[in-house]
Amino acid sequence: MEDLIIVKIGGNVIDEEDKLSSFLHLFGALPGKKILVHGGGKLATSLAGRLGIQQQLIEGRRITDAETLKIVTMVYAGYINKRIVAELQSLGFDALGLCGADAKIISAHKRIHPSIDYGFVGDVDGVNSQRLSEFLQAGLLPVIAPISSDKEGQLLNTNADTIAQEIAKAMSPSHAVQLVYTFEKSGVLLDASDDSTIIPSISPSQYQKLKAEQKIFAGMIPKIDNAFAALQHGVKKVLIGKAEKIAALLSGESGTEILAEAPKA
Amino acid sequence: MEDLIIVKIGGNVIDEEDKLSSFLHLFGALPGKKILVHGGGKLATSLAGRLGIQQQLIEGRRITDAETLKIVTMVYAGYINKRIVAELQSLGFDALGLCGADAKIISAHKRIHPSIDYGFVGDVDGVNSQRLSEFLQAGLLPVIAPISSDKEGQLLNTNADTIAQEIAKAMSPSHAVQLVYTFEKSGVLLDASDDSTIIPSISPSQYQKLKAEQKIFAGMIPKIDNAFAALQHGVKKVLIGKAEKIAALLSGESGTEILAEAPKA
Repeated sequence: MEDLIIVKIGGNVIDEEDKLSSFLHLFGALPGKKILVHGGGKLATSLAGRLGIQQQLIEGRRITDAETLKIVTMVYAGYINKRIVAELQSLGFDALGLCGADAKIISAHKRIHPSIDYGFVGDVDGVNSQRLSEFLQAGLLPVIAPISSDKEGQLLNTNADTIAQEIAKAMSPSHAVQLVYTFEKSGVLLDASDDSTIIPSISPSQYQKLKAEQKIFAGMIPKIDNAFAALQHGVKKVLIGKAEKIAALLSGESGTEILAEAPKA
Repeated sequence: MEDLIIVKIGGNVIDEEDKLSSFLHLFGALPGKKILVHGGGKLATSLAGRLGIQQQLIEGRRITDAETLKIVTMVYAGYINKRIVAELQSLGFDALGLCGADAKIISAHKRIHPSIDYGFVGDVDGVNSQRLSEFLQAGLLPVIAPISSDKEGQLLNTNADTIAQEIAKAMSPSHAVQLVYTFEKSGVLLDASDDSTIIPSISPSQYQKLKAEQKIFAGMIPKIDNAFAALQHGVKKVLIGKAEKIAALLSGESGTEILAEAPKA
């Protein structure tokens, strides 16, 4: 089975031009087949602010009204996606920018929730792993923006972590997938303010214990839950750490590895 | 040689949701392989206005400063491109949205001009016809936004008519290409205010005569020059007319056909 590295980037790596550039150098140089999934950074929020559009967040999720959907589609699938693609191309990597609607890579539906109306937010129904495999086989490097669409052609704002996870799961029957979630911190930390308190690996039983002791920062919980779900669906390895240390992350010298089961003694 | 229809849309077909929808129905239903190239419509200008960014035009071309480049990338390659792709997908056509940077479809350089600094405006160096052919062969329908990039990874605002022409030329050695420029009018008109004065066909000698008599509306001249250039480089047929009449255009019942040479008597 061929190796496939799927990396999700977000936050300050996207916002800071220098950081993005040096990450793309490192990412492009990783061996073998790769897919990059990116989030949005601060640009969508600042653009909405300049246009006087109020942003609402419920449980950390953006409520996406029609105006906000326009903005995130423009920023994520337009500006950020094409900037990354153009830079990867200039480095000699044959990037192909996609949102979920392109080549029907991701099928989604508008989120149905008993009490909260999330607006134009998508939940993923499926991933077109065959098309993604064809693109990889053709030497292309897919760069995926977190916008999808439903059967009626409605664009939908879709969580980038979830997209990365769903793609990782869908590609696992045909590839040995390593899924890497990158963010501001060096990994999962015991003390969110101290980068030296990194937990090198977390098994399900350790995770339950850490959660019970309230030692896991609330914002990390969806990411780690996502990671376990990926492992349960055939993803070979899930890593969490800094984008700037992508090579060290993959070699196990940095970051946190989420383990499907406790290591044997 | 396989047939290929390349259609360029712009203006009010993009701005008016209903018109775009009915065009996409008609376009998708055309037989055989197809590529859609779209322009920008009024959304980029109105967004720039809302953000207080001044727009400059020289000879009908937008001067693209850094802020304007961000806006056109967001609007053309983001919102408009993905809206078209999502709608085509909902109609059962496997659309793939691309800007020139994606899969290196279009190579360009920043325009060099002795007196005018156009800013981040791209002139086309080449078209990756092999990659476009692969996408078509794979059953995909490329939808192309008028943003390209240079070797340094700089995104560049690029004229959509030119992109359509360059793609048509590049695909002609391997396909029997029909290039269709659509716009607000029913074709090339003798009287721009009277849609019934349509000229059904224009040969090079007729064109010279009409130009000498100042019977060609100035705005049409670059389009018709583009059309003759395409025919000289192997494009089989160039048609100009209304997007809403795309089927009638292709069957010769509407619009203006640009002829490589005068029809034999």
